[in-house]
Amino acid sequence: MKSDLRRIMGEKGYAALLITGPAQHNAPMVYLTGGGHMTNADLILPQDGEATLFYNPMERDEAAASGLKTINLAEYNWKDLLAEAGGDSIQATALRYRRMLADCGVTAGKVAVYGVSEVGSTYAVLSALQAAMPEIEIVGEPARTSSMLEARATKDSDEVARVRKMGAITTAVVGQVADFLSSHPAKDGVLVKKDNQPLTIGDVKSKINLWLAEKGVENPHGTIFSIGRDAGVPHSTGNPSDPMALGKTIIFDIYPCEAGGGYHYDFTRTWCLGYAPDKVLALYEDVYSVYQTILSELVVNQPFKHYQDRTCELFAAQGHPTIADDPTIQEGYVHGLGHGVGLQIHEAPWSGAGATEKDILAPGIVATIEPGLYYPSKGMGCRLEDSITVTPEGRIEILAEFPLDLVLPVKNG
Amino acid sequence: MKSDLRRIMGEKGYAALLITGPAQHNAPMVYLTGGGHMTNADLILPQDGEATLFYNPMERDEAAASGLKTINLAEYNWKDLLAEAGGDSIQATALRYRRMLADCGVTAGKVAVYGVSEVGSTYAVLSALQAAMPEIEIVGEPARTSSMLEARATKDSDEVARVRKMGAITTAVVGQVADFLSSHPAKDGVLVKKDNQPLTIGDVKSKINLWLAEKGVENPHGTIFSIGRDAGVPHSTGNPSDPMALGKTIIFDIYPCEAGGGYHYDFTRTWCLGYAPDKVLALYEDVYSVYQTILSELVVNQPFKHYQDRTCELFAAQGHPTIADDPTIQEGYVHGLGHGVGLQIHEAPWSGAGATEKDILAPGIVATIEPGLYYPSKGMGCRLEDSITVTPEGRIEILAEFPLDLVLPVKNG
Repeated sequence: MKSDLRRIMGEKGYAALLITGPAQHNAPMVYLTGGGHMTNADLILPQDGEATLFYNPMERDEAAASGLKTINLAEYNWKDLLAEAGGDSIQATALRYRRMLADCGVTAGKVAVYGVSEVGSTYAVLSALQAAMPEIEIVGEPARTSSMLEARATKDSDEVARVRKMGAITTAVVGQVADFLSSHPAKDGVLVKKDNQPLTIGDVKSKINLWLAEKGVENPHGTIFSIGRDAGVPHSTGNPSDPMALGKTIIFDIYPCEAGGGYHYDFTRTWCLGYAPDKVLALYEDVYSVYQTILSELVVNQPFKHYQDRTCELFAAQGHPTIADDPTIQEGYVHGLGHGVGLQIHEAPWSGAGATEKDILAPGIVATIEPGLYYPSKGMGCRLEDSITVTPEGRIEILAEFPLDLVLPVKNG
Repeated sequence: MKSDLRRIMGEKGYAALLITGPAQHNAPMVYLTGGGHMTNADLILPQDGEATLFYNPMERDEAAASGLKTINLAEYNWKDLLAEAGGDSIQATALRYRRMLADCGVTAGKVAVYGVSEVGSTYAVLSALQAAMPEIEIVGEPARTSSMLEARATKDSDEVARVRKMGAITTAVVGQVADFLSSHPAKDGVLVKKDNQPLTIGDVKSKINLWLAEKGVENPHGTIFSIGRDAGVPHSTGNPSDPMALGKTIIFDIYPCEAGGGYHYDFTRTWCLGYAPDKVLALYEDVYSVYQTILSELVVNQPFKHYQDRTCELFAAQGHPTIADDPTIQEGYVHGLGHGVGLQIHEAPWSGAGATEKDILAPGIVATIEPGLYYPSKGMGCRLEDSITVTPEGRIEILAEFPLDLVLPVKNG
């Protein structure tokens, strides 16, 4: 939780955190400012002082809305900085950071840097700052195990409520998609529109984006809506011109966020239009069984990765290859059980590659549970995913309930 | 243009470009791969070899769709890398980059880095790579004057066509908004809905997002739709609960992009509902006059900044303060004349702070022309903005025409 940040800073011996980049679609900046239309900003949080937000004067209203202490970047005269840096804009920016840090009382110690921005120019500026200020140590933490993610791994009740609301919106749209598909008649094995042309993945995706926009949320990362062989490739997003054919697995994985890049939801269902062939039904039943077993076995404060091991064990017992045996496989169970969800679709706690015993199912976490089986060579794949939270009382709770049914009935199907 | 990249690399003595981050909403990666659902990828473009895209195996279909030579990141065994790096994931990632560069034939020389990603972890990885490979020099260019932006400053005909299409969509939505506003009756000086409640900025913004989604585009940076005093602050996005009041300046600045973070359009109109008070009309006429004068004076291959100087001169002659006199002013003409538009809303060529004689109106550029005047103390602001291109023949062309009228008639207005 945000209230853990200073404790974590203390444990790691950080004198300050420096967050840079826009205030939208930039998780660390949204986390500490609340977001808003700032095209570029900086925030310095000293271990022993209040956070200061540095803003572009054209964006003074948005900066003020953060409620934070603010400083106008124009107070650091750019022409003077540039002259002092011999006309080198990288050096001038580094010089400005030096002054900004000093104005926050940070003149020595470790400064940990975060933010989603242009990495090349930021590397150059931070390198110049480090060279000019040997009394500080600029720290970049691994993206998946940063202090920021450690704090964000557990959510307060307001954050959980925001994810839950995104879950309600997401599942409402999924319901609209199911109704939309079911409302189309089948002809020669594919759903057809009024003009007798096949309904395509592209048609469905247009509706998804429209319905999400109607509900005031964004879908910046797109949607996975893939059928048949493509459903056998976990992140294949689907070919827009593919027709909606009966009897094939459709993987529908949807992960929208609040407008401006706020909290996400992450959800997957696997559908078969009209009917399910035996091999698809068998695949689905294997995934469904593992999904239910894992959900029933989750216990508060256990390491998430234990359930990844358990998932591999369960799938292996069913006779499927898993990444526990070979991390390079592309058939069988080929990914992690789940991941935290919040201001990023993928964040701590982790269950798969790189997860540690510190990634626990603590009260306040929000995470996906998403076992799946993939057989592109057999033209099918299946994944079931819900986002859960662990309540303050230690109970596991799905944040937005939705039926897990495989077969979507269609007219003449 | 993309075809200029190797020439620019040669001029700067770069052995390779390294682009990192997701393939969506990451301009350099979209530029070189065409985009697609890749959550994280790397691309290496050696001076004397073909580009190689390194992908996550779950995203192999998306990587293949780029048409580039691809390498599966799983071929660099992570467990082995981690063991070799003593368990340090930053060092292991640096080691992997070293091997990836070697596999592209890059073992020495300057490597320029680009991409929108987490800056802290990338700083750490690049620093580790630099320390481990003194035979290369990792270069981070200033974000506003990078080789990548230099290449992207001029667009080929396909890119211009994509921006033009975004312009058609943008102005169609602006027309829908105008019709929507005009369809509401006024009561006690504000537009009201059927339930007699005031129509608000929040209501209008919901419609904007919906209509953009209907047309299949994204609006990740939001929309500026601000009224009265807020219109006097250039990047104030507007208070959602503010009613649509008659006789006040409304600044409507809209800058959506193709789905997945492709090409943008950028467009602004200033409206007054029902009528324009004299002071608003005078403000508008000053901006309109400067807008038309500047548009008529633009000449191919001239430095863009000359027209910023000219705009300041014209506004000053009208009696307005300008940033030419004082860069910290917040009333009068307070920003640059325009900027390039493409995979980023703001890119080269530049006209304002930091623009050089190299930022010219070359054939193929796409840029905004957006003079404006801001008087928050008087509760008003005005900006007029169109995106133009310079045709291969050297002609200045607005990419999407739309009326410049100030007053939007309303019922009983």
